[in-house]
Amino acid sequence: MTAPVLLVLTNLPDADSAHALAAHLIEARLAACVNVLAPASSVYRWEGAIETATEVPLLIKTTAGRYDALEAAIRAQHPYELPEIVAVPVTHGLPGYLDWVRTETTPDA
Amino acid sequence: MTAPVLLVLTNLPDADSAHALAAHLIEARLAACVNVLAPASSVYRWEGAIETATEVPLLIKTTAGRYDALEAAIRAQHPYELPEIVAVPVTHGLPGYLDWVRTETTPDA
Amino acid sequence: MTAPVLLVLTNLPDADSAHALAAHLIEARLAACVNVLAPASSVYRWEGAIETATEVPLLIKTTAGRYDALEAAIRAQHPYELPEIVAVPVTHGLPGYLDWVRTETTPDA
Repeated sequence: MTAPVLLVLTNLPDADSAHALAAHLIEARLAACVNVLAPASSVYRWEGAIETATEVPLLIKTTAGRYDALEAAIRAQHPYELPEIVAVPVTHGLPGYLDWVRTETTPDA
Repeated sequence: MTAPVLLVLTNLPDADSAHALAAHLIEARLAACVNVLAPASSVYRWEGAIETATEVPLLIKTTAGRYDALEAAIRAQHPYELPEIVAVPVTHGLPGYLDWVRTETTPDA
Repeated sequence: MTAPVLLVLTNLPDADSAHALAAHLIEARLAACVNVLAPASSVYRWEGAIETATEVPLLIKTTAGRYDALEAAIRAQHPYELPEIVAVPVTHGLPGYLDWVRTETTPDA
């Protein structure tokens, strides 16, 4: 009844793949809501050089109990071999909203 | 003296309502700083269909002690019946900045 | 081997300073990946008045063990006297990605 809620972050290479993944996660009840943020520049090291790439961040609201299935679904659809998938715990929130997240991520009977 | 600091996330339907809420929260000392992010697309399920809506995310810096009053103020001004309000804990930070958050969110005498 | 991973947030006054700081943090192995987000509006109180300023948020992926050095590097390069530097804990994540963060932030031998 009071499953912890998580805020999960991943990054897609463009808006089309970001929206497609967001819709898939909602459709599969692996997330209650996904925010597709404005495009960002990601900076990282690759084969010794500093690289910059445009990416579209997703902020995904789900529960801890659905995290493993969510992670598997992101991996299955994400175009990168090793995508960023990190989650931070929600420790406070509007009770009605948190309940809505739990309800929306309950698998269909 | 060392009240925990929170990062609170909510989403408004447009930039005007986002800026109005941000200014109100600062004015009322319910937050020390609010970042009004670039518009995002929010994807969710509504009455069985997958919906997409433009929303403007707010990142709000406050303390755990002010959370309940902050939540009440967001609910009172937010145009949605059930707005997203979720908070994640700040576990590390620049001490001077964290102190500034605590000072700025102390109610006026 | 399983050092906690952090998501660190700071804000720069413009895209040039944001990209310069991001590249510096990667170069120094103080972060594995930095997302330079689209420009945001920051709202805060300054000398009694409500101010709004454009800022560019950075989302920095690092480990708890590198946090102190990261904070020092941000302070040394950041144009503000008291920059926002706050971090939230990563409690779930793709194991391979978290390992990559740990490897990328290991100081050069």
